[in-house]
Amino acid sequence: MSKETGSVYLIPTVLSPDTLFAIPAYVTAIAQQLTVFFVENERTARRYLKALDKQINIDNLLLVPMNEHQAPDIALAKKLLTEGKDIGVMSEAGVPAIADPGNLVVKAAHSINAPVIPMVGPSSILLALMASGMNGQNFQFVGYLPVKAPERVKMLKELEHDSERKRQTQLFIEAPYRNNQLLKDILDNCKEYTQLCIAVDITGPTEFIKTKSIRDWKKQSPDLHKRPAIFLLYAGRE
Amino acid sequence: MSKETGSVYLIPTVLSPDTLFAIPAYVTAIAQQLTVFFVENERTARRYLKALDKQINIDNLLLVPMNEHQAPDIALAKKLLTEGKDIGVMSEAGVPAIADPGNLVVKAAHSINAPVIPMVGPSSILLALMASGMNGQNFQFVGYLPVKAPERVKMLKELEHDSERKRQTQLFIEAPYRNNQLLKDILDNCKEYTQLCIAVDITGPTEFIKTKSIRDWKKQSPDLHKRPAIFLLYAGRE
Repeated sequence: MSKETGSVYLIPTVLSPDTLFAIPAYVTAIAQQLTVFFVENERTARRYLKALDKQINIDNLLLVPMNEHQAPDIALAKKLLTEGKDIGVMSEAGVPAIADPGNLVVKAAHSINAPVIPMVGPSSILLALMASGMNGQNFQFVGYLPVKAPERVKMLKELEHDSERKRQTQLFIEAPYRNNQLLKDILDNCKEYTQLCIAVDITGPTEFIKTKSIRDWKKQSPDLHKRPAIFLLYAGRE
Repeated sequence: MSKETGSVYLIPTVLSPDTLFAIPAYVTAIAQQLTVFFVENERTARRYLKALDKQINIDNLLLVPMNEHQAPDIALAKKLLTEGKDIGVMSEAGVPAIADPGNLVVKAAHSINAPVIPMVGPSSILLALMASGMNGQNFQFVGYLPVKAPERVKMLKELEHDSERKRQTQLFIEAPYRNNQLLKDILDNCKEYTQLCIAVDITGPTEFIKTKSIRDWKKQSPDLHKRPAIFLLYAGRE
């Protein structure tokens, strides 16, 4: 009789400090049972697990790092799953396997037919889209825009054009210390009537989510320096 | 002294019956305080509020309908918010203001500078993306595909082509009674090595989420008739 494979649990974490209220209780119940986690940031993961449940003995856990410099150990993931061991996957913030290498662990699980269980939690992309008032039936997330000016402006204009043509909401992000520069580039290069939503510090006490036309943002624009933010553009007809 | 405007709270509901575990407790705390809700389905909304808290007196609530046949009463929303009244917005399933007219209420709120507070809850789009193992740094949700065969096949090929060119994950849905036909169209028209994720009954006891190549799906494909499903396509290089 063959042993059952383990499962991959996608464990959401908080987007802002002290916002455990945004995590459903069943996440804690699962986290308590797991002993292996693939994590984007070991320190954040330890602190979060401890916050979920003080009883969890962090020293007994196997935390396998994965990040932009270090791909997850896929051979290890497959070995553990094949042996029937469950694995948790955690991003540094929000839901895993979206903007971190956690999707490679998920991919490995599918390749050996191991179950993957996504769990509900905060996602800045989804929360910003909900709160933008923009079209949610057709949207695109493109991650980071190019850093260099000509490519970045070209990309912004393409996104605006596609938004108008397809009535599509465009979502993108920037490294927090470059947010103000990105905002300037948007205001300098997009059309007056294009709608821009700026969503900052989502779920936190200083949450700021506002949709206005480029023209209105030019009158008064917020300081976004080093604050986690997401930008949404909509140039489609009403 | 001017009175403060009310806020719009985006209240998530369950994706499957009896899955309240996927709703964070703070959603209940907010729902208990609200007396006006813009809802996609009145019956679902009543049942859900009652499930969150038996003490809520449903008869005392104002439920304003909004759906594909009936746009939300924006004048009423603005009037209530201006008077300082908070409004809850609820979809028939999952998070509101994405695939329902709730975004029009949000838009109205932004137009009068009323706060919009998105709350964490289950989204089939986000959960499917997490569990697919596909690229989460670049993805597109395009809603329903065209119903008629030539346009639909053309669209599928375009999505596949764009996925390959941009390394972009493509997400789309279909009316549940047409799921099997859509699956057939995908298998008949996409490339052998293109990856397809099928995510069905998300968060429910019969949850099924699997990513395989078109070639592998052709060997054995599930019956999706009338089951809520979401499809993800990825044709990009590894």
